[in-house]
Amino acid sequence: METIQAGFDFGMIGLGTMGRNLLLNMSEHGIKGAGYDKDTTKIPLLEQEDEDHNTKGFDDITAFIKSIKPPRAIMMLVPAGKIVDDVLEELIPLLDKGDILIDGGNSFFQDTRRRDIYLQSKGLHFFGMGISGGEEGARYGPSMMPGGDKTAYEVMKPILEAIAAKVDGEACVTYIGPEASGHFVKTVHNGIEYGLMQLIAETYEYLKYFLKLDNAAIAALFEKWNNGRLQSFLIEITSEIFTYKEKGENHILLDDIKDEAKAKGTGKWTSQIAMDLDVPIPTIDTAVAMRNLSIYKSLRTLLGDKYKTETHPEEAVDIGHQTKLLEDAFYFAMISTYAQGMHLLSKASEAYKYDLNIADIARIWRGGCIIRSEFLNTIYKAYSNDKELDHLFMNKNVESELKETETGIRSILQTAIGNGLGMPAFAASLGYFDSLKKASSGSNLIQAQRDFFGAHQYEKINVSGTFHTQWTGIKSSK
Amino acid sequence: METIQAGFDFGMIGLGTMGRNLLLNMSEHGIKGAGYDKDTTKIPLLEQEDEDHNTKGFDDITAFIKSIKPPRAIMMLVPAGKIVDDVLEELIPLLDKGDILIDGGNSFFQDTRRRDIYLQSKGLHFFGMGISGGEEGARYGPSMMPGGDKTAYEVMKPILEAIAAKVDGEACVTYIGPEASGHFVKTVHNGIEYGLMQLIAETYEYLKYFLKLDNAAIAALFEKWNNGRLQSFLIEITSEIFTYKEKGENHILLDDIKDEAKAKGTGKWTSQIAMDLDVPIPTIDTAVAMRNLSIYKSLRTLLGDKYKTETHPEEAVDIGHQTKLLEDAFYFAMISTYAQGMHLLSKASEAYKYDLNIADIARIWRGGCIIRSEFLNTIYKAYSNDKELDHLFMNKNVESELKETETGIRSILQTAIGNGLGMPAFAASLGYFDSLKKASSGSNLIQAQRDFFGAHQYEKINVSGTFHTQWTGIKSSK
Repeated sequence: METIQAGFDFGMIGLGTMGRNLLLNMSEHGIKGAGYDKDTTKIPLLEQEDEDHNTKGFDDITAFIKSIKPPRAIMMLVPAGKIVDDVLEELIPLLDKGDILIDGGNSFFQDTRRRDIYLQSKGLHFFGMGISGGEEGARYGPSMMPGGDKTAYEVMKPILEAIAAKVDGEACVTYIGPEASGHFVKTVHNGIEYGLMQLIAETYEYLKYFLKLDNAAIAALFEKWNNGRLQSFLIEITSEIFTYKEKGENHILLDDIKDEAKAKGTGKWTSQIAMDLDVPIPTIDTAVAMRNLSIYKSLRTLLGDKYKTETHPEEAVDIGHQTKLLEDAFYFAMISTYAQGMHLLSKASEAYKYDLNIADIARIWRGGCIIRSEFLNTIYKAYSNDKELDHLFMNKNVESELKETETGIRSILQTAIGNGLGMPAFAASLGYFDSLKKASSGSNLIQAQRDFFGAHQYEKINVSGTFHTQWTGIKSSK
Repeated sequence: METIQAGFDFGMIGLGTMGRNLLLNMSEHGIKGAGYDKDTTKIPLLEQEDEDHNTKGFDDITAFIKSIKPPRAIMMLVPAGKIVDDVLEELIPLLDKGDILIDGGNSFFQDTRRRDIYLQSKGLHFFGMGISGGEEGARYGPSMMPGGDKTAYEVMKPILEAIAAKVDGEACVTYIGPEASGHFVKTVHNGIEYGLMQLIAETYEYLKYFLKLDNAAIAALFEKWNNGRLQSFLIEITSEIFTYKEKGENHILLDDIKDEAKAKGTGKWTSQIAMDLDVPIPTIDTAVAMRNLSIYKSLRTLLGDKYKTETHPEEAVDIGHQTKLLEDAFYFAMISTYAQGMHLLSKASEAYKYDLNIADIARIWRGGCIIRSEFLNTIYKAYSNDKELDHLFMNKNVESELKETETGIRSILQTAIGNGLGMPAFAASLGYFDSLKKASSGSNLIQAQRDFFGAHQYEKINVSGTFHTQWTGIKSSK
């Protein structure tokens, strides 16, 4: 029997795409990692891919645990939900007090909160860490959002900073805050991601179905946009997708893919949590609704036959002018989407007492993660200059960018609406802006109606207290 | 000591607006009701208001219980949440097996589900019943949505049918389905209510801030609309609100009310549940977000100073034409809102195995409740004619009404967007329609992006299975 030496710096449970690539990333930085997976087919893959020979795969959990230097640092990268709890129960008897456990998956933040309390009671250090960047990020530098046990984070800091993406020499990782704040921030990151992806999908529809551009023209346009202020990971990969052909095929793969979008739930969580916190994030809500809508493909086909809005003849459309307006519109809607997400972070920070540093979060999102973009520099500067910034729309630079692009989004939406092209996430992004700049709105009417039919009371301007009015003689209903 | 005779037909716990008025309603129909409230100030109110002298108030719960004829039927009308559980714990030791308990409040449907199982284990019959109609409805005929124990419902049926609103001689109450289906349907009712109220608030903004109509003109317009196809309780009370002055005051009360809308959570639940069920209801989501947005009044005031969209000069606006278009727009958006709610009911019925009769639900919503409207007749007919109707937009009558009003909503939204008036619920209502009639959408791009960065796989047109592509050479991130 092989004697196991406790020689590894780090342990990884779950050798899927993310876990394996993170270990390879560590290995490249001289960090020796042990890997464990129940699925033994994944184990040889790890060692084959590791050119630096610093990793070893285990199919025996006890041997795996014994191979890690105490106090041990072990990350789980397994599917969110019950599996995380199952793995924890399997691990607890094998660990020693003072060991560090990290949940690097997309766990629901309230689950992380519960596990944090539970694992503390077992004498273990725990932190929930959101990791973004997909396969490429995991391998060459992700953005990481660790929250929870700060002592444990300090121990892990050198490893995490080594493997993180770097922007201007700074690692895209920072201690986020207590409890489940790391997973919370990752959830909001994903909510923003849903919003941006829906905006891109609607842009694609406008280009394809209204401007009648072909894939090559769309690819070129996204590439051009990516060299300007829209520079971002999502715009970049979108331009690549429009040129991708499978080996031996003569057409673009995208055209073979079903227009039914799937989701794993983090966008939905963002919307649901925001509603619990009374924070409006309508672009993200719309993105969630539109992913759900996309799956009703057979109904859409039936309704598509029934309802046809005449799109105006294309002859008169000036493509150059239209795509310029569309770039403005996208930039405006993108700002609105980020602003909603950052506002949610501020309000959640108050409600959950996370004491989040919003500037720092924008900073670590500039590299490695899916929503990384040139614009995150503007957000970073805005919150760095004013730690108490109430809303991104209050920042001077953002103000001038919104004003510069406002005409573009209004024009594009007017055209879209006139031509029966739904661009609901664009509409929500502008609607958010227009509603938030309404010093006076019609919501007094909602207060009056609620008091009228439900005696829910209302508040008055310049008079404190709540009031109820008998609005009408009560009478037979209907 | 007074000997208590078990002479009452019915018991009511909670003598607030709803509980008291329901007892008075019963009393008028010859049903003898006992009332109990911890707050003793409410007890004399009940007896004073009861002209038929069939009710009696109790401040002692044991005496109250003993006063009801066995097997007892007792309704709770107390605030949703923990209070319901507290009342149940107080009641259980005092009740006998076979007694019937009804939760008539706005309980969260998952709480009702839990309580249903718990009370069954205690040998009690339980049903959760949504009641809509506010004070007036409770007094003169509400719409009621009972779900759960069917035997208990059959016992209660004569009382419930007596006190319910009547439309064409039919009572606005029916057995909804098993478990928490009654409270679920009431939640969706309220979600639709949120949507319609937001549409009315946005209409008000257009009339006041863009068309510059005064309160009297707005009241007259809503009154006119209420005499046409927009006929509904909410439009009716809105027209009354625009004329209401407090005694001795010379101005309209509405102008004194703060434009910060409150909420009690049922709209939020509707959106959150719909997201869990993958059903898009963007108008309702938007209404929830906009109530939340309204409370950021100080931010709105600051942003209102910063961002001003020039509204075009009013001279050229044809008020008559504009209000005609607005009526079309409202009708279209209203149809879209109801359609979203009914679609959610259909899908929830499948997911939760409620086996809901959507036609029956539309039927009992035609009277007594807050969302009662002329248009519910169209919905009732649509689902009566086709029990398997997949979506309201598939119905012939609805189709012709949407086609007739489509130009109106497009025109109003184009004007609103051009003039910086956010009408996000109108935009969401049209965006839902436009997206649902997209036989081909841009959602294939979202599938491709997810597979690109996260190896989440995608599906192909006409080929079964899921696929993953290595879209690009993996490279340094940023």
